[in-house]
Parts: sequence; C-alpha cells; structure tokens
Amino acid sequence: MTQSKLIDKLSNKTATIGIVGLGYVGLPLVLRYCEVGYRVIGFDVDQSKVSALLEGKSYIEHIGSDKIARFVGSSLQPTSDLSRVKEVDALIFCVPTPLGRHREPDLSFVVGTIESVAPYLHPGMVLSLESTTYPGTTDEELKPRIEALGFVVGKDIFLVFSPEREDPGNPMFSTQTIPKVCGGCTKECLQAGIALYDKVVDTIVPVSSTRAAELTKLLENIHRAVNIGLVNEMKVVADRMNIDLHEVIRAAATKPFGFVPYYPGPGIGGHCIPIDPFYLTWKAREFGVHTRFIELAGEVNSSMPDYVVSKIVDGLNSRKKAVSGSRILILGLAYKKNVDDSRESPSVVIMERLRDLGAQISYADPHIPAFPVMRAHRFSLSSVALTEESISSFDCVVLATDHDRFDYDLIRTNARLLVDCRGRFAEGAPNIVRA
Amino acid sequence: MTQSKLIDKLSNKTATIGIVGLGYVGLPLVLRYCEVGYRVIGFDVDQSKVSALLEGKSYIEHIGSDKIARFVGSSLQPTSDLSRVKEVDALIFCVPTPLGRHREPDLSFVVGTIESVAPYLHPGMVLSLESTTYPGTTDEELKPRIEALGFVVGKDIFLVFSPEREDPGNPMFSTQTIPKVCGGCTKECLQAGIALYDKVVDTIVPVSSTRAAELTKLLENIHRAVNIGLVNEMKVVADRMNIDLHEVIRAAATKPFGFVPYYPGPGIGGHCIPIDPFYLTWKAREFGVHTRFIELAGEVNSSMPDYVVSKIVDGLNSRKKAVSGSRILILGLAYKKNVDDSRESPSVVIMERLRDLGAQISYADPHIPAFPVMRAHRFSLSSVALTEESISSFDCVVLATDHDRFDYDLIRTNARLLVDCRGRFAEGAPNIVRA
Repeated sequence: MTQSKLIDKLSNKTATIGIVGLGYVGLPLVLRYCEVGYRVIGFDVDQSKVSALLEGKSYIEHIGSDKIARFVGSSLQPTSDLSRVKEVDALIFCVPTPLGRHREPDLSFVVGTIESVAPYLHPGMVLSLESTTYPGTTDEELKPRIEALGFVVGKDIFLVFSPEREDPGNPMFSTQTIPKVCGGCTKECLQAGIALYDKVVDTIVPVSSTRAAELTKLLENIHRAVNIGLVNEMKVVADRMNIDLHEVIRAAATKPFGFVPYYPGPGIGGHCIPIDPFYLTWKAREFGVHTRFIELAGEVNSSMPDYVVSKIVDGLNSRKKAVSGSRILILGLAYKKNVDDSRESPSVVIMERLRDLGAQISYADPHIPAFPVMRAHRFSLSSVALTEESISSFDCVVLATDHDRFDYDLIRTNARLLVDCRGRFAEGAPNIVRA
Repeated sequence: MTQSKLIDKLSNKTATIGIVGLGYVGLPLVLRYCEVGYRVIGFDVDQSKVSALLEGKSYIEHIGSDKIARFVGSSLQPTSDLSRVKEVDALIFCVPTPLGRHREPDLSFVVGTIESVAPYLHPGMVLSLESTTYPGTTDEELKPRIEALGFVVGKDIFLVFSPEREDPGNPMFSTQTIPKVCGGCTKECLQAGIALYDKVVDTIVPVSSTRAAELTKLLENIHRAVNIGLVNEMKVVADRMNIDLHEVIRAAATKPFGFVPYYPGPGIGGHCIPIDPFYLTWKAREFGVHTRFIELAGEVNSSMPDYVVSKIVDGLNSRKKAVSGSRILILGLAYKKNVDDSRESPSVVIMERLRDLGAQISYADPHIPAFPVMRAHRFSLSSVALTEESISSFDCVVLATDHDRFDYDLIRTNARLLVDCRGRFAEGAPNIVRA
C-alpha cells in the first residue's frame, strides 16, 4: 500500500520533507522539521535566501542564525533546484498568495510552483498547501494538475490543505504549539496529512474537506479585519464626540465575557489581514453572494492613513504650518509592533501621502535600519536615531507603530507636535494629538 | 461636607439604597444590596411586580423566590410610591431604554423617572443611571433636570453613569463578580459613585467621564452585534459554497490567539444587541459621522428570520408541500438558550412570517409555558410537549433556540423535516436542513 508506506516513513521520521517557500511561514516550519529529526530540503526561487541559509545566516529578525547553523549541512539542505522534489516524500507549499492590481487573487506562485514541480512528482507523496487562499483552490487548482499527470489523488498522491497560522514575533506560541487545521481531498489524503504534521505540532484539527480548511483560515483573518475595521470606525466617532476610544476599549475589556478588545490604528498591514479577506470576496461572486463586512472593513481600514494625514495637517495648521516644507518623522515602519516586517504597512502609505504633499519625510524604526526595497514604494532612507536633538528638530512626530523599544518618555518630552495613532500618550498635553 | 457624609453612610452601610426598575437588571441589584446588609427600597411602576415581591415571589426564572422571601419585610421594601425617594441616600435607575418606531432612542422611561422623582430629590444623594444609552445622556438629560431644581451637581447631588452588565442565565458571573464601569459628572460625583458600588461589586473600573462610561457599554454590545452579523453573513456565503460554517468556526476557534468564536443563528434578540447599537447611530448623526458597521450588522441580523423562512419554504417544497396549510413547530421561543426571555426574539418573527404564509404554527419551549403578552406580537399558544407523536405530527420542526433541556435525539429521530438554525444536528441526514 502506497499510503501505509508513506505514513510509516513519516511516523518513523525516515521521510524526507520538502518545503517550498522559505519566508515567514516556510522557514520556521523547516526548522521545526529539522528539530524533531527529519531530513528537510528547503526550496526557494530566491537564490539570496538559499545562499544565506547555506552560510548559516537568518534573514528574519525573530529567527536566530544559530538555529539555522545547527541544521545546515546536516539535516537541512537549502536549494533553488526544484528537480530535487524527486527526493522528497512530502512537499509543503508555503508560497505567497497576494492580490493582483484589481484585488483579485494572484495564484501565480501556487500554480507556478505546482507546474514547476510537476515533472518531479512521484507516487507515495503527500502534498500540502499552506498558503492562505479561497475555498476550492486545492480541489480546483492543484488536484486537476496532479491528475493530469496520471496520478490518482488519494491513491498515488495525497493532497491536503493545512493553513499556516504563524504569528511572527509572538513569544507565546510557536509552530509546535499552534494547533494545525488540516483537510484532505479524500479520507486517505487526510490520514497522510495528519501523519505529515503529527510529529511537529502538538495538536492537529482535522476538518471534513480542503474547502472547510481553506475557509477556516480566511475566517480567522476576516474576523480580525472586521474587528479592526469596527474599532477604526468607532475611533472616528468617539473622536468627534471628544471621547478617548482607547480608554473606552480598556474599560470594555474588563467585561469578563462577550467582549474581546481590538485596538484602532493607522490602518492595517502585513501579508494577511489586508489581503486574505478579499480572496473570499472574489470567490463569493462566483456564487452570487456578497461579503459586505469584508468590503466595509477594507474600506474603513484602508481609509485610516488618510485620516492620520488629516490629523497631521490639522495639527500643523493649528501651529500655522503647512505640511509642505514641514519636517515629519514617522515612528515605526513595521506594520505591527516589535517585528521587522513592513509589508503593506500603513506607515509607508502615510509617508507617501505626506511626501506628495511636500513634506520632508524621515522615519525611525529600531527593527528596520534601512527602508527596504518594495514593489510599489520607494524611499532612500535610513532609520533616524532618536535623541533629544533629533526628535525636537522635527515639526511633527507621528507614532505609527508602537514598538516596545521606543523610549516614550524621550519622545513625549521632546516632540514639538506628536500625532499618536496608538493611544500610547495620555491626552491633554498641548503637544499631543490623537489620530 | 455633603459628600463625605454620604460616602460615610455608604461605607458603613447605614445608607438607604433606592433602585428604580425591578426587571432583569434592577432585581438582582436589589438582592445584592440586601445581601451585603443595606436597607433597600425597590421602586417599580408595575404594581404586579411590587405585589409579587411583597409576597416573596420571583417573576424571573433564574432568580429564586427564596432569595426574595429572605429580605422582603426586613431590609427590602418594594413599592410603587416614588415619594419614598425622600428616604433614600442613593438612587439607581434601571429603567428600559428601548427604540422608538423609527429606531430612535426612546428615553421616555429615563426622563419620566427623573421628572417623577424630582420633587423628592434632596442634597446628599448620589444618582446612578445604569440603563444603556448614548454618550451624553447623563450630561444632557439628567444633569440639567437636577440643576433646574436648584441643586449643584457635584456638590449637592452626585451624578454618575454606571452601565449594567447583567447576563441573565450566565452561571459563571454574578452582579458581584462582574467588574463595574463608572463615570461621574465631576470628580466628586465619581467618588460618590465608587462608594455606592464599593461594597456590592468586587471591582470598580472608574473612567474619566459619564460619556466614556456610556460609550463603553455601547461598544460592548456593538462588538457583539457586529460579530454576530459577520458570522450570519458568512453562514450564507458558506452555505452557497456547501461548507458547514459551524465546523469552520469550531476549527478556527482552535487558534489560541487572535480569534474568538461567534456563532450564527436565526437573528438576534433580547433587550441589548438588537437595540443598543442604534443609540450610537442616532447620536453619531448629530456629529456628522456614520456608524456603518452597526447599520450593516442590523441589516444582516434582521434579515436572518427571512433567511430561515426561505430555508423552511425550500425544505417543504422539496417534499412537494407548500407552507400554506403545513403544520410547523418552532423549538425555542426565547432569544437565547436556557433563558425564559422572549423579548425581540427572532423565533417570534419567524412564527409571524410563517403564519402570514398560511402555516399552522406551534412552539415548544421548556422555559416559556405560554406565549407571553407582547407589544407587537400576538399568539394564543401554549408550549407543546415533545413526544414521538407530537414531533412526528408536524410537517416541519425548526430549531430556533438550542436550549439544553431539549431532547435532541428524540427530535432528530422523529422530525419529518428538521430545519436547524443552530448547527446542533450533523448535516447529511435526509431530514435535516441547515438554516
């Protein structure tokens, strides 16, 4: 039996695990498989990642190079050569699923990967897609391509969807301790999927189909997008009523049931919350249904950078200054606190809007020493060191992301005008504006 | 000092506490004040409530008559005579704040009460409004009326807003253990408010203003309304995609951070979630801002009874039956499980729609033996006893509210067609339809 042989190899850790995509999701998973004793081949088309790993170096802030150095050369083999898929018993896809320019799902990385590895697929493999995507992707995009090669899914090759739940920088939970949802194309596929993850995660949550697993991950992120959208809308309402919404949320959070606090901010960023929900919106159209909460959350959340800019304009104006010509410092380039990830960060959108208005823009982020290369945004900037002199030299300082490493006393004392998007500073001081 | 004398009396429990409105909120509070040793005068315009209490009888299912009998005649004095406000040191308003016919706040009970008690107010009192309402109510509706009597708020009379957080039927939390948010018109008001609640609740959460306290309560219920609206919308989407949303929510709930499960249903009911959010919507208009999440949640949630009816129509149709002339049994009249409260219950809306379509309607609810008197709905019905015979005699059985006291095996086995609004029954059986 193909399946029982595979499950045996996975159980006794003689299986070789292949992981495609060595980013925020793939790299921790690679290390976890190494840790428990599997041989792992890590695939990435980005040769610079492969080279860094081969030198035992990490390129993700919260993952130590020591962990990589420990396994490279022995159980971990990084490569950009997809033909080595021949050697693996399991292949896990951790590739990006971004949005296209018209907010449609961009499955090019998923489809490109399956087509690139097609010549090297072989019977007795389990394939797992971890990339967040709409319900039906595994069934409609992966399964037919595998079957076109002559394999029977559920007999020759086992196919599951098992969404990643990485939370970079969260010290409470790791790849091992976060329960893993898994749905298979067939019962046999699910069994193989469970065997694949059984040794590396503490809890597996089997669901009845790949579609259910796909929707599970989307629901998690839709829940966050909508709850953040709600408090962002409430922030605007409370601000008009001269009520501090942060105080209100903290008070509401003392209710011991039926309430969970989410906090407003300058918008949403990262590779999940601003993107994933629209995968469902797109798919729902095929079924003639609407995802209005997602649309509304998207609209509210994406309007927040403009709201922040309007608060900056107002704050400068009340000091008889125009934005044009003002020196403005953005604190926090990352999209959330204590991480070095600036993907889809609202800070960047705010910087761009202000630059377009003629401001001289600087930023400070202890996690991001230089403004990274981005597809859609370009700044030639390095992080400003925060000192009395540097802070007080700006017309306006904007707290966009509230990293723990910032010295908030230093900032409060020296900022001429402080626009606070995170409710970090008590209201009332003349130099402080909430946004 | 007026204030220090009042605080002393509250602290040493020689103060007399008056509570206006002896419903789901006021009655538990009355009993809690009695329990810790205060003398309490309970006011209600409804003479039947006063009479019941005088006889030591409870009219709320989850409050035992023994608790009432224990205090009536000694520390507890129920009355409908508002002139006895003369005798109290503290007056707590637990009166209804419903919506008018055009979804506008109906403050008639709040305003009516303050005007009725006006002749009996006296210096050295603390007044607390607990009724859910929009930010500004205490400041704009109560304070001016007290000041018009010649009192200085914060000096003669102390005024606070401290929202009720009762969760009827929740065995985990009581009036004592639920933290109590409190905001005062002045610092002195807040101090008096804290003294008022200090002996009866474990934790007081002071906030900076009555407005902040008012918005806190609204935010709690807006959060619920929006999250329920979201899963109700998702239910419709998942249903079209042939995915069981209940399974998806259960799987998502295994994520140990960043997700909180809310479950879909036939709509929302009770005296909070369907009503309170629109208090903010109404007030926000005064400030030129919109509460779009609230509007959307209201729209989605209030459309759910029609969605359920459409599922009933479809289910009967697939058995070649029309609704007209069909015998339909609604399980659960209460708006949520294990309580006897049918206010704003979607079950009633569903019953009315089906009756309008010509169905013969019955209901079964172990908590509600006879259909109660309602302002806007009228049925002359008693709860049907659930037996093999009774269940199988209906063309369709609708699980609207999933009380623990229902015998689900009995229902599943005997229902000819079972429309399940609560995800209680596994899908797949030919007699089961999810709604």
